[in-house]
Amino acid sequence: MIISMRLGATKEQVDHVCQRIEDFGYKVHSIRGEERVVIAALGIGDVTHCLESLQAAPGVESAVAISAPYKLVSRQFQRERSRVQVDGAVFGGDEFVVIAGPCSVESEKQLLTTATAVAKAGAKMLRGGAFKPRTSPYDFQGLEAEGLKLLKKAREETGLAVITEVMSNGDVGLVAEYADMLQIGARNMQNYALLKALGKAGKPVMLKRGLSSTIKELLLSAEYVVSHGNPHVILCERGIRTFETATRNTFDIGAVPVLRELTHLPVVLDPAHATGKSSLIPPLARASVAVGADGLMVEVHPCPEEAYSDGAQSLTIEAFQKMMKDLRPYLELWKESRSLAVAV
Amino acid sequence: MIISMRLGATKEQVDHVCQRIEDFGYKVHSIRGEERVVIAALGIGDVTHCLESLQAAPGVESAVAISAPYKLVSRQFQRERSRVQVDGAVFGGDEFVVIAGPCSVESEKQLLTTATAVAKAGAKMLRGGAFKPRTSPYDFQGLEAEGLKLLKKAREETGLAVITEVMSNGDVGLVAEYADMLQIGARNMQNYALLKALGKAGKPVMLKRGLSSTIKELLLSAEYVVSHGNPHVILCERGIRTFETATRNTFDIGAVPVLRELTHLPVVLDPAHATGKSSLIPPLARASVAVGADGLMVEVHPCPEEAYSDGAQSLTIEAFQKMMKDLRPYLELWKESRSLAVAV
Amino acid sequence: MIISMRLGATKEQVDHVCQRIEDFGYKVHSIRGEERVVIAALGIGDVTHCLESLQAAPGVESAVAISAPYKLVSRQFQRERSRVQVDGAVFGGDEFVVIAGPCSVESEKQLLTTATAVAKAGAKMLRGGAFKPRTSPYDFQGLEAEGLKLLKKAREETGLAVITEVMSNGDVGLVAEYADMLQIGARNMQNYALLKALGKAGKPVMLKRGLSSTIKELLLSAEYVVSHGNPHVILCERGIRTFETATRNTFDIGAVPVLRELTHLPVVLDPAHATGKSSLIPPLARASVAVGADGLMVEVHPCPEEAYSDGAQSLTIEAFQKMMKDLRPYLELWKESRSLAVAV
Amino acid sequence: MIISMRLGATKEQVDHVCQRIEDFGYKVHSIRGEERVVIAALGIGDVTHCLESLQAAPGVESAVAISAPYKLVSRQFQRERSRVQVDGAVFGGDEFVVIAGPCSVESEKQLLTTATAVAKAGAKMLRGGAFKPRTSPYDFQGLEAEGLKLLKKAREETGLAVITEVMSNGDVGLVAEYADMLQIGARNMQNYALLKALGKAGKPVMLKRGLSSTIKELLLSAEYVVSHGNPHVILCERGIRTFETATRNTFDIGAVPVLRELTHLPVVLDPAHATGKSSLIPPLARASVAVGADGLMVEVHPCPEEAYSDGAQSLTIEAFQKMMKDLRPYLELWKESRSLAVAV
Repeated sequence: MIISMRLGATKEQVDHVCQRIEDFGYKVHSIRGEERVVIAALGIGDVTHCLESLQAAPGVESAVAISAPYKLVSRQFQRERSRVQVDGAVFGGDEFVVIAGPCSVESEKQLLTTATAVAKAGAKMLRGGAFKPRTSPYDFQGLEAEGLKLLKKAREETGLAVITEVMSNGDVGLVAEYADMLQIGARNMQNYALLKALGKAGKPVMLKRGLSSTIKELLLSAEYVVSHGNPHVILCERGIRTFETATRNTFDIGAVPVLRELTHLPVVLDPAHATGKSSLIPPLARASVAVGADGLMVEVHPCPEEAYSDGAQSLTIEAFQKMMKDLRPYLELWKESRSLAVAV
Repeated sequence: MIISMRLGATKEQVDHVCQRIEDFGYKVHSIRGEERVVIAALGIGDVTHCLESLQAAPGVESAVAISAPYKLVSRQFQRERSRVQVDGAVFGGDEFVVIAGPCSVESEKQLLTTATAVAKAGAKMLRGGAFKPRTSPYDFQGLEAEGLKLLKKAREETGLAVITEVMSNGDVGLVAEYADMLQIGARNMQNYALLKALGKAGKPVMLKRGLSSTIKELLLSAEYVVSHGNPHVILCERGIRTFETATRNTFDIGAVPVLRELTHLPVVLDPAHATGKSSLIPPLARASVAVGADGLMVEVHPCPEEAYSDGAQSLTIEAFQKMMKDLRPYLELWKESRSLAVAV
Repeated sequence: MIISMRLGATKEQVDHVCQRIEDFGYKVHSIRGEERVVIAALGIGDVTHCLESLQAAPGVESAVAISAPYKLVSRQFQRERSRVQVDGAVFGGDEFVVIAGPCSVESEKQLLTTATAVAKAGAKMLRGGAFKPRTSPYDFQGLEAEGLKLLKKAREETGLAVITEVMSNGDVGLVAEYADMLQIGARNMQNYALLKALGKAGKPVMLKRGLSSTIKELLLSAEYVVSHGNPHVILCERGIRTFETATRNTFDIGAVPVLRELTHLPVVLDPAHATGKSSLIPPLARASVAVGADGLMVEVHPCPEEAYSDGAQSLTIEAFQKMMKDLRPYLELWKESRSLAVAV
Repeated sequence: MIISMRLGATKEQVDHVCQRIEDFGYKVHSIRGEERVVIAALGIGDVTHCLESLQAAPGVESAVAISAPYKLVSRQFQRERSRVQVDGAVFGGDEFVVIAGPCSVESEKQLLTTATAVAKAGAKMLRGGAFKPRTSPYDFQGLEAEGLKLLKKAREETGLAVITEVMSNGDVGLVAEYADMLQIGARNMQNYALLKALGKAGKPVMLKRGLSSTIKELLLSAEYVVSHGNPHVILCERGIRTFETATRNTFDIGAVPVLRELTHLPVVLDPAHATGKSSLIPPLARASVAVGADGLMVEVHPCPEEAYSDGAQSLTIEAFQKMMKDLRPYLELWKESRSLAVAV
């Protein structure tokens, strides 16, 4: 923690800050520069409370932490990369996992048609929303429990592991009964009651980055899940909100190498929600493999214009097949680089 | 709904879109320009599903709605402004309501000292968090039920109505027992399970705008609460996330006149969360009155540097008293303009 | 300057960084924490080059400056507020200066009608663009030299001082012949060739904040003008670019108290460009006075829908007159608070 | 152009708008919906002025253009992709062009060492700044004319074509004498005096996207250059400004497929300025190839920590060599897909 005093801060103010730091259990290291006094607080442990307190102390210009506020998800804490396993797929290992399926579960026929096709084309997991977070109360809200049952059926028929969203801590138990992996949507990334409940869910979790969440906040939300008992977390970048309107959101592909430096958790990319437009997905899928992500999530629908939600960003089955074919040589390069990689 | 076809869209594609529009129950109005075909879909009702479907149809360049997707909260639906009443305060009427109190309820002494002081200085409502949404799992998470009891005690001693945050649909019943108004925090603005539960809460709701939520999304979230049975909603602008780092967020004061054109719901401002710095609050409080908001929420703490949270943006009791004194002539101008105002 | 070494940085890396700091002429102060080494570099002077160098040195996690990189415009350099004077108006003193006029100079009649009306209603300066920065090459680009002559004529007839935009360093001499104050538009805030030329212009300058410029960058651009010889600079906040689309930009009114803490330069607000919609301007003008800005710039046109540019955000003459009348009691409060203010 | 009237707009207002549209030379097509009147204006040509006028007309809710406001750079205007040729490299054809070199030209030795090395490793063009746009007036501003001479010398010795930035319309002639391609920096993307001068420069132009410029604005700035006489323009995405602080900017890789749909101009990517951190560049370079860009620009310095600018984002010569080697199989896939591509 580094505390910069204002120009002209009095000796009393400096002494008071030093005293506060010691009261919090840290060692004080005060530096008198030519312009101002800067104070370092040394020690291990969570500094947030001390930091906020000092920011409110008289004479303080700024107080900033040096160490990351997350520990369990940090590569400083665990150097080797985590592997998160579901039935039939491992994230963070030596395979690039493709998750595909419709935005919403709409009917048995729609789901099974899609599941069968994406399995055949090389997807390892099936996605499909049973509980749908919709901006408008008048939009389709999902088939709920009925949708979960259809997902289970699709898993039985195709062997694909299933991921689906859970929107409320009260539903975690129910969804965990049916799904192999629980998805936390972007709007719920900081729903702390839900994150705590996931700590006890007994199933792996995919945490999607909030629309305007920093990478640090994403990692702190993952820290909630891990610190409440569940280390099986994968992260998903799905576009952030910016001023640009040509795409629905801005696909922050740079988050992948940043996250690989900061955390041992696997990272997957979702170019469909990032851009909102199906024609942009194949080139961004290639980029997702090349940048070194651990997996990819896309939306596929037998007839996008009949989709109950997100039709404009859903691939047709044919488009998905073509994309998977085109990805093949990139996936081979991906495998090679993974097998060469020593932990960096 | 206006659908622009791509340049070079075929007759079959145009016909298909027209057919789809009619299938959804709208009237088609097709316009053949010199460059492209534009199609208008006419009719009343919810267009979202039709819109999303058309965006995925072949040959479509874009499909946009003309009417607002919210109805109940719109001034088109209800011209006269809503008044939201709690014990001792009315939002949206002829008084400017000041809500003050600590960020977190920390102890009986802290809360009662603050409550007594802010009541004396002119606040009409007491704020104080019992359930705290914190970015880090290691930060203080609130006194929870114990905090609610202290808030009740403070109300009994001061007569101030109480507002406090509820973070999970499972807690709505508990919090509603103690609070006069339920606060939905910025991070939960799109927690739809929670919004639906608030529809049945039987208590007025303050809905805070999400950090990166548009005004349209804020109104759609309010529409969730109202359409689920609770018309007693006030909106709160508390800063949006931008690239600027000189303040914690950017205070979007322009949202007030925009919202007054779009909705009949009352609007209050929270310059403390918007800026994160107590010295900036008094000038922004003056601006909040002058711009025509319905109220103001600020954080007050007997000793900000000992606060468990948000110390840097908390006013001391003295600073709050001074601010309230300075606001007086502005509040008189506010009253005058309200009494002159005919519904615009 | 505070340099944080990575966890596990070697002794050689730490020694190398210390050596580099000394080579740049600063004193080294190294602190060995329990987790990592943090190094403070002490001394006066410009640290940017040293900082960038250290950021590229092996083993360095981050290097941040403690002191502001601008000096001449900082309140640390000059405590008392600057007054910037043009013929008939003083910014930063005891009057709130209203600047009004059309977006573009279009014709003698349009300009003189507007100028006469705004002068009568209380404006102290006339604005009007002769050189127009337009996003599209096909939009009206301004009357150029002819427009400057009309501005001069309007000044002679009304006594209003004139402000107009200069877009290129090659035009500074020409524009300075006609204008009392030179305006630098948002898109040119970091046109350094232009900023340097303004240092020699011999006329006061209004520097508008770039659409996505931080407050720090705005002050650094002002520093360019001042350090090249021209201390007569006023700053203008005119909206920043964010994700919100309900207004053209987001009006960052919080920049006013922030700038009053950081700089001695006067600050004016431009709610017209910030919002793009004339109906929002009167409430935001009241807020601009209340927040303590030094002035206000608005666009006025005799017939907004016939304006060559920015019609949607231009006030009619009647709307401007009404706004000025409504501002009166707020301006009185403003004067009172200024006369009470001791330098803060 | 689609004009939506407000709910309750009067017949006079509708008639007035229709009359205005006809006065501007467009055909009127009025549609009376159940809620409101919507008016389509049909015709070819530039609609901006008409659009702005209508936005200011009484009773108008919104007025939006359907067609893109740029023509010459649009794929609607020219279906086949443009090729932009400099001595030794072609953008937009069947080779992926790598541009490399130091941020600033610092000395003959620094430049020649770098140029020789990057040529050998496979770069086709040399970058190096002689005129430097720097946020602070106290930072290194470039060697100017002396730097241009060194670039010429480097070209003679290595055969690499040279690209360098021009910051002011007054310098276009001078820089064009020495450079094979003129670079317009992000801060000058809307410096219209400069863009117009480039129309006459007689040399190809690389236009970098502004930090907060939309893709539409980028294309309109390109339209300035092309409409003033110079069709040899390539576009460069180099990161946009967002709330995220983990990287200097956010690398908007999705802009590549978007631009390939909208324009025939070549697109290159600059992951160095986008992220500000050299360790992130190799994975993002791979992604840049995979996404289908036409080229890549990176910064290389013999000793990044001694660089006068941008050291933290500069690759060492060794890192550049390794990156080029790792890119090879991706470049082969790129070539294959280009040779397969029929115009899409």
